[in-house]
Amino acid sequence: MTLKLIFSEAKQWKYLVDTLSRLIDEASFIATPEGLRLRALDPSRIAMVDFVMPSEAFEEYLCDGEVRIGVNFDEFKKIMKRGSAKDKLELEVSEERRLKVRFRGRAVRTFSLPILELGAEELPTPRISFTVEAKLLSDAVKDAIKDAEIVSDYVKFETGEECLLMKASSDRGSVEVEFTRDSGSLIEIDIKEPSYAAYSLDYLSDMMKAYQLSDILTIEYATNKPLALTFDLPGGGRLTFYLAPRMEA
Amino acid sequence: MTLKLIFSEAKQWKYLVDTLSRLIDEASFIATPEGLRLRALDPSRIAMVDFVMPSEAFEEYLCDGEVRIGVNFDEFKKIMKRGSAKDKLELEVSEERRLKVRFRGRAVRTFSLPILELGAEELPTPRISFTVEAKLLSDAVKDAIKDAEIVSDYVKFETGEECLLMKASSDRGSVEVEFTRDSGSLIEIDIKEPSYAAYSLDYLSDMMKAYQLSDILTIEYATNKPLALTFDLPGGGRLTFYLAPRMEA
Amino acid sequence: MTLKLIFSEAKQWKYLVDTLSRLIDEASFIATPEGLRLRALDPSRIAMVDFVMPSEAFEEYLCDGEVRIGVNFDEFKKIMKRGSAKDKLELEVSEERRLKVRFRGRAVRTFSLPILELGAEELPTPRISFTVEAKLLSDAVKDAIKDAEIVSDYVKFETGEECLLMKASSDRGSVEVEFTRDSGSLIEIDIKEPSYAAYSLDYLSDMMKAYQLSDILTIEYATNKPLALTFDLPGGGRLTFYLAPRMEA
Repeated sequence: MTLKLIFSEAKQWKYLVDTLSRLIDEASFIATPEGLRLRALDPSRIAMVDFVMPSEAFEEYLCDGEVRIGVNFDEFKKIMKRGSAKDKLELEVSEERRLKVRFRGRAVRTFSLPILELGAEELPTPRISFTVEAKLLSDAVKDAIKDAEIVSDYVKFETGEECLLMKASSDRGSVEVEFTRDSGSLIEIDIKEPSYAAYSLDYLSDMMKAYQLSDILTIEYATNKPLALTFDLPGGGRLTFYLAPRMEA
Repeated sequence: MTLKLIFSEAKQWKYLVDTLSRLIDEASFIATPEGLRLRALDPSRIAMVDFVMPSEAFEEYLCDGEVRIGVNFDEFKKIMKRGSAKDKLELEVSEERRLKVRFRGRAVRTFSLPILELGAEELPTPRISFTVEAKLLSDAVKDAIKDAEIVSDYVKFETGEECLLMKASSDRGSVEVEFTRDSGSLIEIDIKEPSYAAYSLDYLSDMMKAYQLSDILTIEYATNKPLALTFDLPGGGRLTFYLAPRMEA
Repeated sequence: MTLKLIFSEAKQWKYLVDTLSRLIDEASFIATPEGLRLRALDPSRIAMVDFVMPSEAFEEYLCDGEVRIGVNFDEFKKIMKRGSAKDKLELEVSEERRLKVRFRGRAVRTFSLPILELGAEELPTPRISFTVEAKLLSDAVKDAIKDAEIVSDYVKFETGEECLLMKASSDRGSVEVEFTRDSGSLIEIDIKEPSYAAYSLDYLSDMMKAYQLSDILTIEYATNKPLALTFDLPGGGRLTFYLAPRMEA
C-alpha cells in the first residue's frame, strides 16, 4: 500500500493540525484514492471534528487503497509547527508504518513519527435539523467569542430580525454582540424559526483557531440542539466542528 | 438624566483606560454638558490623575446635567481592551445605572458594567510653583525611564544648561540620560532656576503608558517638589499626572 | 591609557553581546591599536568563543596601548539591550576604570558599569584539522537546530554527496535536514573525507543567536572532532565558536 501526498502550502496544514490538536488527543486520518478524511470526538465527547480534503486539493496525491494513519496530535503538532510559509509539505507512509512529514523549502527537512494503530470504527454523520444557517466573517466571530469570555464561560446564540446575536452575562457584567448585514460581519442568514441555544466558550474558542484557515465560516444551530461550525478549505476541503449545547441550570 | 457619548476612535480610550487602571482602582468620571473629567489619587496617595475631555472632542455628546460614573478600572479595562482600531466607541448610562460600552465596527458589541456609587468629594487642583517646564518626545522619555530601571527604583531630574538630565545609580551601575534640543528629544525648555528632585520609577513607568496617547509630553517640576506630566489629547483633552518627590535617605 | 570607540550601529553590538552572554559569564575584551578581541571558554569548558573586530570596523577608534576590559556579561547585556536601531554606540574606559557605554540617538544615554580585573592568561588558538567546510544560510541552520530539538538534545552532522546532513532521533521520533546547493541553503561545501560527529543542541542553539549578525555562516568539523561555527561581521570582524563533540553512549 503506497501513500504519498504533496500539499503546496505547509502553512495551511500547520493551522489545521494546530486547531485539531486542541480538541483531539489521538485520531486516524483515512486516506483513500478520493481523498483524506478524519472524524473524531474530543475526549469528553462534547465536540466532534469532521474533516475532508479531496485528492484534488493536493499538488500530488498517490494512494492505491485505504490507508489509516493514526497520530498523536501533540506530537504531530510539534512537527507541523516547524513548517514555514514558503515550504511545501509532503506526507508519506513508509514501509515500517511510520509517517514521514517533509518540508521542502530552502532545505529538505524530514520528520518521522510512529503511526498509532487505533480502533477502526467510524463515527456516523450527525443528523441534526438546523433551523438557522448563517455565513459570517471568521475573525468577527473569533472576536465575539473573546468578548463573551470576559464575563462568562458559555455564550447564548439567538436570532433577531435578519440578524444573529451572541449573548453572555454573569455578575461580572454582560456582553451582547449583534451581527447584521449592515455592519459587514454577516454575509448571509437563513432563519427557519427563531432559535436559541447556549454553548461552551472553551470549545468555541478552540474551534475558532481555524479562523486562520478561512475568512468565512458557516454557523448552523437549532434551539437546544448542537451547533455546527464549518470552514471551507482551499481546493474543496472542509472542516466542520459539532458542539453539544450546554443545558442551562 | 441622560448620558450618551460617541467617540470616533475606540483605540484612544483603550490606551487611556489602560493607563488609568495602572494607577487607580476605582474612581468616578463626572460628565457635565461641558465635558468629561476625572480626578483621583492612587491608593497610596503618592500620585494624582487629572483628566479632562471637553464635549467637542466627542463625535456626539448628549448630557443634560451632572452624571457621576463610578467605575472599577480593572473591569473597565478588560472591556476597553476589546476595542479594535476601526471601532467607534459609545458610552451610555442606562436607566438602571449601568454603564454601557458599545463598540461599533464590523459587529455591534455592547458590554455593560455596574456603576459604583463612590464618595462625592472632589479633589482640589494642586498648587505648585514649578521652576522647570520642558516639552519632550514621549517615547524618548519612556526609554529613559526604562534605562534608569536597570540600576535603580528611582530617578533624579536635574537641569543643565538648556537641557534636562535624568540620572539613576546604585551599586549595580549608573545611568545618565541627557535631553538636548540638538539630539531632537527636547522641544522646548524653560528653566526659572536650576532644580533637582527624585521620583519613583514605578509610578513614572505606569504614567508613561500614556505615551501612546500623545507624541509629546510636558514635564514640570521644582526642587524637591512634585512633578507634573501632561499629555495633550486630541480634540482639546488633557491628561496630567502629579507625583510626589521621593525624599532621599 | 585612553580608550574610546565609536561604532555606528548599536544594534550589531546588542546582538553580539546578547549571543556572548549566553555562553560566557565573565571575560575580558582586549583592546589594542589594531582592534578589539575576546577569547573565552564557557563555564563547563565545552565551548570557546573567539571574537575579533579590527579598528577599521569602528567609526572612531582611539586606543594608545593595550587595555583589558573585564565585564560581567549579564550586566553588560542588560545595558546593551537598551540600544535602539538608530543609535550610535560609544565605548569608553574612564580614569576610574569604569566602562562607559553611551547610546547617541534622540537622547544621549550614558551607562556605566564596573570593569572586572580578571586573570590575564590568554587562550591559545585551537588547532584542529577539519575535513569538512561548508558555507550555509544562517537562518536555515538555526531552523534545523530547532527542528532537531523536537526529538533530541544532540544532533549528528554527516556528509552526503556534495551535501551536509543534520540528523537527530530518539523514541519521540526522528528528524533529518538535508542542505543541498539546489535548495538554496548550501552555498559552498568542501568535503575532504566523509565525516560525522554529534554536538549538543543546547550549545548550538545559543551560538545560533548570532544568526542576526550575519546571513551566512561557515561550519567546519571532522569526525569526532570539535566543530567551528564562524560568522563574518561587517567591517572585517569575525565571531567563531568552537564546540567539543559529544561522545555517544
